[in-house]
Amino acid sequence: MQKSDGLDIVEGFFTRGVHCGIKKSNNDLAIIFSEIPAAAAAVFTTNRVCAAPVELTRMNLEKNHHIQLVVVNSGVANACTGTKGMEDAILMSQMAAQEFNIEDPSLVAVASTGVIGDFLPLNKIEIGIKQTREFYPDNPSGYDTARAIMTTDTFLKEKAVTFFLDGQEVHLAGIAKGSGMIKPNMATMLGFILTDAEIDPRSLQKALKNAVDLSFNRVTVDSDTSTNDMVLLLANGKRGKGVINEKHPDFLIFQEALNRVCRDLAKDIARDGEGATKFINVIVQKAKNESEARTVAFTVAESPLVKTAFFGEDPNWGRIMAAVGRSGILIQPERINITINGVPFVEEGMGTQKMTRNELRSVVQSKELEILIDLGLGDASFNVWTCDFSYDYVKINSHYS
Amino acid sequence: MQKSDGLDIVEGFFTRGVHCGIKKSNNDLAIIFSEIPAAAAAVFTTNRVCAAPVELTRMNLEKNHHIQLVVVNSGVANACTGTKGMEDAILMSQMAAQEFNIEDPSLVAVASTGVIGDFLPLNKIEIGIKQTREFYPDNPSGYDTARAIMTTDTFLKEKAVTFFLDGQEVHLAGIAKGSGMIKPNMATMLGFILTDAEIDPRSLQKALKNAVDLSFNRVTVDSDTSTNDMVLLLANGKRGKGVINEKHPDFLIFQEALNRVCRDLAKDIARDGEGATKFINVIVQKAKNESEARTVAFTVAESPLVKTAFFGEDPNWGRIMAAVGRSGILIQPERINITINGVPFVEEGMGTQKMTRNELRSVVQSKELEILIDLGLGDASFNVWTCDFSYDYVKINSHYS
Repeated sequence: MQKSDGLDIVEGFFTRGVHCGIKKSNNDLAIIFSEIPAAAAAVFTTNRVCAAPVELTRMNLEKNHHIQLVVVNSGVANACTGTKGMEDAILMSQMAAQEFNIEDPSLVAVASTGVIGDFLPLNKIEIGIKQTREFYPDNPSGYDTARAIMTTDTFLKEKAVTFFLDGQEVHLAGIAKGSGMIKPNMATMLGFILTDAEIDPRSLQKALKNAVDLSFNRVTVDSDTSTNDMVLLLANGKRGKGVINEKHPDFLIFQEALNRVCRDLAKDIARDGEGATKFINVIVQKAKNESEARTVAFTVAESPLVKTAFFGEDPNWGRIMAAVGRSGILIQPERINITINGVPFVEEGMGTQKMTRNELRSVVQSKELEILIDLGLGDASFNVWTCDFSYDYVKINSHYS
Repeated sequence: MQKSDGLDIVEGFFTRGVHCGIKKSNNDLAIIFSEIPAAAAAVFTTNRVCAAPVELTRMNLEKNHHIQLVVVNSGVANACTGTKGMEDAILMSQMAAQEFNIEDPSLVAVASTGVIGDFLPLNKIEIGIKQTREFYPDNPSGYDTARAIMTTDTFLKEKAVTFFLDGQEVHLAGIAKGSGMIKPNMATMLGFILTDAEIDPRSLQKALKNAVDLSFNRVTVDSDTSTNDMVLLLANGKRGKGVINEKHPDFLIFQEALNRVCRDLAKDIARDGEGATKFINVIVQKAKNESEARTVAFTVAESPLVKTAFFGEDPNWGRIMAAVGRSGILIQPERINITINGVPFVEEGMGTQKMTRNELRSVVQSKELEILIDLGLGDASFNVWTCDFSYDYVKINSHYS
């Protein structure tokens, strides 16, 4: 499996991002166009305040199981916008369908991210769609596309792999945006994943669900979940030699490639959490079952006191113990061992006597931290990727709308 | 009912705080002494990582249902300290018992707050206890006592009421410490409440549980719950004309006085949350049931994005809607109305069209905010007191241990 550049390597797709004035600067509108309707799978936010584009895309996907065009904007979320919001989402899909000569607008997926409550600036969006069309078909740009879905992200998130499926070299690539309001729950932030393999829609959905559970659903920045989360996976079969389904012997290779791209994107989302200065992997081991391991991992990863301590490079392991203790599961404190980057901090529920606080401090000065919490109760484990909680998180989020 | 000064007005108790060097400066050790063993009630942290003083006090209370002496220190929590931690807590109770001539050390309650993981400096604590003894009996000081339990608190929390019980004027007063690691859960931070009324222990426990549910259990600063939380209520009957139990016609008057002191202390804890610049009362109305109202209120009150928006005086109501939507209960977004300090922000799930964002901004510039969330589903309500999330929260908590 060889890593390569990004969306541009996937055949039969044209993608492009532009700046059309929804945001003051930076790209804010993108198009993903497949030469033919592509088998499609998606996971959506479980937030019950769900934005109009999420509802429209879900409906279209349920109807067709195929998508030919994705139009996505950043800057305005089109959430909490009532029936006008839904009308606007439909208009956005129709404008894009018309521009790209797609007869059936229900083959269009729409996605939006940005401030909640404002209405879409449809005139700007129309201009943006026309701009992308001018680059078609000769000047696609995965880079510009990935930039167009960013909000407070500080770097773009784009990953790709090349692999063999049924003897045929195929490609899979994805982009994502994250940063704040990040705790995907059976869903995620915005993510768009493209492949030129040929997979049937049902198997595609299954593979996406598996991959999301192992990736985006293990990320938390601030425990807030968004109204607009969506991961969309399109398979246009451009390099397919025949439809692959989940019974095919090579299906696991596809699953593995998808997992890898999703996992790399997910880790980048944690790494680029709003204001983040540290990437933190919280691993809970020897729990009674995976559900309990998950509960403990998220409780620690979301504790404001744990996160601010790591920002300050304070080896305040008592806060990790306190978070484990309030997680709601039955634990035995005296069985708990905690290491950070392999160095023991807690042994049998107490602070290690082997190192001074200053020695522990030097451990937490690392930019990448692996917190390993051994509960000593069973065989299950779970991990969550997160980041620290800094002044800049407060700064970014105190003046957003 | 008349408010008065504090612990000093409650008869038959001697309380005193001193500085004995556990912390660099400020009082760090306090004694509460009752002339006779007082009927006692308590609620404790539900955190399963539970500090030694909590365990010892719980045991002593279960044995006697009476407490004559409380010894409490700040600076070191004596949590995650294993069997040595329990031995130290016992030694601390024995030192205090000896100094105040109490034959049975199981009539002593101990409490600690501060850094988790360090062992108690017993020599300093012994000195501190002797210091308090020198002030006995002529120089009690509720003020110095309240100061001795503070950690990152910026002001002391002391409340008192005088009222009539069975025709007799009695007193009730309490102190509390809060600030960070504050999300009491059927328990609270440190709180000590004294009364010279005469109440039987069982009724006292019931009254305390009721009062805590209406006060400390409605506060959250950062959703972290402490290993050392404890609220202790002592009734020495010094001004009693006979034991009052829950069947007495005046029991409700006692309950009301206790509720008032607990509520005032609880609101002060939210007001003085670490780094807080705003006091926020989140009220959820017209929920299907109280449990759902509670879930929504805490989800909004603990959302880092809601809290940072209020710090920045950003009228970003979309974050409130998003928090309601992820709270896990079934809602209908189009039925939701939200006002802040009486001004409509959200009407039928959408941003109000009556005011500009700048007009809304002027509303959230107030130091005290009442967020009223009407779910439009039923008759139940619940409120939570909290504060905003500021640079100073991060500052205070990034370098603590």
